Amino acid sequence: MKLSCNKRELVEALQIVSKAVAAKPQTPIMSGIYLRAENNTLELQANNYELGLVAKIPAQVEEPGQLVATGRYLQEVVRRLPGETVAFAYRKDENIVQIQSDTSNFTLLSMNASEFPTIRYLEDQLSFTIKDNVLRKLIKKTVFSCATDESRPIFTGCYMDINDTLITMAATNTHRLSVKTAVFDENIGNIRIIIPSRVLNELMHIINSDIPTDVRVTCSHNQISFECDNIYITSRLIEGQFPDYQNIIPKSFATEARMNTSELIAAVDRVALISRANDYNIIRFEFSGQKLHISSNNPEIGNAEDTVAAEITGPDVNIAFNAQYIVDVLKNLDEEECRMELNQPLQPAAIHEGSDSTFIYVVTPVRTAN
Amino acid sequence: MKLSCNKRELVEALQIVSKAVAAKPQTPIMSGIYLRAENNTLELQANNYELGLVAKIPAQVEEPGQLVATGRYLQEVVRRLPGETVAFAYRKDENIVQIQSDTSNFTLLSMNASEFPTIRYLEDQLSFTIKDNVLRKLIKKTVFSCATDESRPIFTGCYMDINDTLITMAATNTHRLSVKTAVFDENIGNIRIIIPSRVLNELMHIINSDIPTDVRVTCSHNQISFECDNIYITSRLIEGQFPDYQNIIPKSFATEARMNTSELIAAVDRVALISRANDYNIIRFEFSGQKLHISSNNPEIGNAEDTVAAEITGPDVNIAFNAQYIVDVLKNLDEEECRMELNQPLQPAAIHEGSDSTFIYVVTPVRTAN
Repeated sequence: MKLSCNKRELVEALQIVSKAVAAKPQTPIMSGIYLRAENNTLELQANNYELGLVAKIPAQVEEPGQLVATGRYLQEVVRRLPGETVAFAYRKDENIVQIQSDTSNFTLLSMNASEFPTIRYLEDQLSFTIKDNVLRKLIKKTVFSCATDESRPIFTGCYMDINDTLITMAATNTHRLSVKTAVFDENIGNIRIIIPSRVLNELMHIINSDIPTDVRVTCSHNQISFECDNIYITSRLIEGQFPDYQNIIPKSFATEARMNTSELIAAVDRVALISRANDYNIIRFEFSGQKLHISSNNPEIGNAEDTVAAEITGPDVNIAFNAQYIVDVLKNLDEEECRMELNQPLQPAAIHEGSDSTFIYVVTPVRTAN
Repeated sequence: MKLSCNKRELVEALQIVSKAVAAKPQTPIMSGIYLRAENNTLELQANNYELGLVAKIPAQVEEPGQLVATGRYLQEVVRRLPGETVAFAYRKDENIVQIQSDTSNFTLLSMNASEFPTIRYLEDQLSFTIKDNVLRKLIKKTVFSCATDESRPIFTGCYMDINDTLITMAATNTHRLSVKTAVFDENIGNIRIIIPSRVLNELMHIINSDIPTDVRVTCSHNQISFECDNIYITSRLIEGQFPDYQNIIPKSFATEARMNTSELIAAVDRVALISRANDYNIIRFEFSGQKLHISSNNPEIGNAEDTVAAEITGPDVNIAFNAQYIVDVLKNLDEEECRMELNQPLQPAAIHEGSDSTFIYVVTPVRTAN
C-alpha cells in the first residue's frame, strides 16, 4: 500500500471512525483502525462489533493495499503532522507503515490486516432515505430518555416505528418517555425496530452538515446501517418488544402552564444545585397565580427557591420531580416557549415545545412526604 | 451580618479565594470560605494552612458581621445567581445565611465563624515592592522546574535571592535547573528564601492585570505574603539550604545552535508522541550540517523523526534528553528564537531565549546505549 492524501480530511475521517475503536479491546486487533487503499480512495474502518464505522476520503493511490495501525497512535500522529499532505507507505516485509509529512517521518508497527473484522455492507432489504436534519431532530428529542442501565436492554435504545408516511421515535427508561414524530413525502411501508442509543448518539454528532443531506437507512432483521456522504455506520439492533408507550400518555390534562424555556432552564439549574446532593434529587414545582415557584431542600446544605413567570390555565398544582428528568428535557428544547400539562400531583405530567405537536415528553412525578 | 454587593465582583473574589480551600479538609471548617463585612467592604478568606488567600470587594454593609459557608456550594450558588446584585443576610439564631438575587433565594447552613483560622497579616519586617509583570516573568521561567516529589522539600520551591538591586529566582529538581534574574530601581538589601511552588503557581494566575501593578512582598522568618490590589496571599516558606546551583552551570560551551522556538516545540511535541510511552521518555537530538535532527524510538510502537533548521557553530553533537524536560522549558519561552548550548553528549546543555541574558535553563542529558 502506498498513497498520499490531504491531512485535514484524514484527521476528520480518523476522528469519526475512532468512535468505534474499542475502549477496552479484547484482542489487540480491536484497538486498530483498518486502512484500505484502492481506486483513488482511502477507506478507514473501526469496528467494536456493537458499532462499526467507515469513512472514505480521496487519495492518490500509487499501490493498493490494506493495513491496520493502533487507532490511538495513528490519530495522535496524524493530528500533529506539519504538512498539508500525508504519505503512507506500508512495508510488508517489516510489517510497518511509514507516515511522512513535510519534515516529519513516523514509522508505526502494523497489525495483520487479514485479522481485522471488516464491516459488511447491508444488502438492500428494507431501506429508505431521510434528510439528516429530520433524523437528527428525531434522535435529539428522544435519545436522552433511554436507560443507561443495561439490565433491561430494550430501554437502552430508541424505538423507531415507521407506518406508511409517518415516522415515530420513542424512548423511555420507565420513569420518563420521549416521543417525536415526522412525516415522509412518500410511503415507506412498515418498520418497527429498536436502535441502540450509542449508535444514535454518534450519528447525531456525525450528521451535522449545514446543507440538508440525504441519509440512506438500511435494516436487516438484526442490523441497521446509515450512509451519508462518505460515511457508513452500522450497528446491531436490540431484540425484544418495545412496550406500548401510547398507554402511558395521559388522554387529557386539567392544568396547562406556558413558560419561557431559557428562564425555566436557568431556574431549575439553580434550584437543582441543592437537590442533586440528595439521592432522589427532588425539586418541587408549585403552579399558582400566574407563577411557577420552584424549590428544593437538603437538611445538610440548605434550601433554594426561584420563581418563573407562567401563563397558567386550570387548577393550581403542587408537584415534585427528579430534577435530572426536568433538566434533561429542557436542555433539548429548541423553542423559546415551553408548555407543561398536569393533572394531580401523583399523575404523569407532560412537557411540550411551544406550539409544536410533534413532540411530547411524559415524566412521572415523585411522591414526597408533604 | 447583612449586605449587598455586585455579583460579578463576588464571583471573581470567590474564584480567587477558593484556590486555598482544602481539597481534603481535615475538619469541616476547612471546607469553608470565611466572609467578614465591615466598613463597606466584604472580605473573603480561605486558608488551608499551607496557603492563605484574602480578597476584598466593595459592599453596602447594613450590619457588620462574619460567617463561614461551605466553599463549594457558596461558589456554585453565587455563580448561577440571575441578578447583578447579591444580598446576604446571616440569621444567627438558625445559623443560616440567606442569599438573594433577583427571583432566587438560597439558604445555606453556616459554620461557626469563630472556629475559622483567619489569616494574620504579616508585620512589615522585610518588605519590598515589585511590578507584577516582572514578578510573573520570574515565576513563569522557573517554577516549572521545581520537583513535584515531596521527599526533598527544598526542591519543591523556588529560591529567591535578592542582593541589593538584583533579584534571582532559581528552581531545580536536580535533573534540570531554571535561573531568571531581574533588576530593581532601588537597593532592596539581602533576602534568601525558598517559596513553595504552589503559592507561586496561584500567584502567577492571580497577578495578570493588563496595566503593570505594584505587588507588595513581605517576609518573616517562615512566612511570605503578596499583596496586590484587593488580594492578599500568604504562604509558609520552605526551610533549608538551597544548593549552590551556580556550580552546575557550565562555564563555557563548544557548540551553539539557534532555532525558531515554535518550529522546535512542534517537532519535539510530535517526536515525543512515540517516546512518552517509554519509562525514560528519551528523545535524541543530532546537531549537524545546519540542521537539528530529532528522533525517538519505541520497539512496541515504532519510531519518529523530524528536522528543524538550526544555525550551528562549533562541533556536531549527538545527545539524548528526557523529552518532558525539553517540552517544559520550550512552552515557557516567549521569544521567537531560542538558543541551545552544548558540550559533550554526557555534559549538561543550556537553553536560552533569543538574545536574552537574564534566563538560563540547564538540563542533564540521558545516557543511551548507542
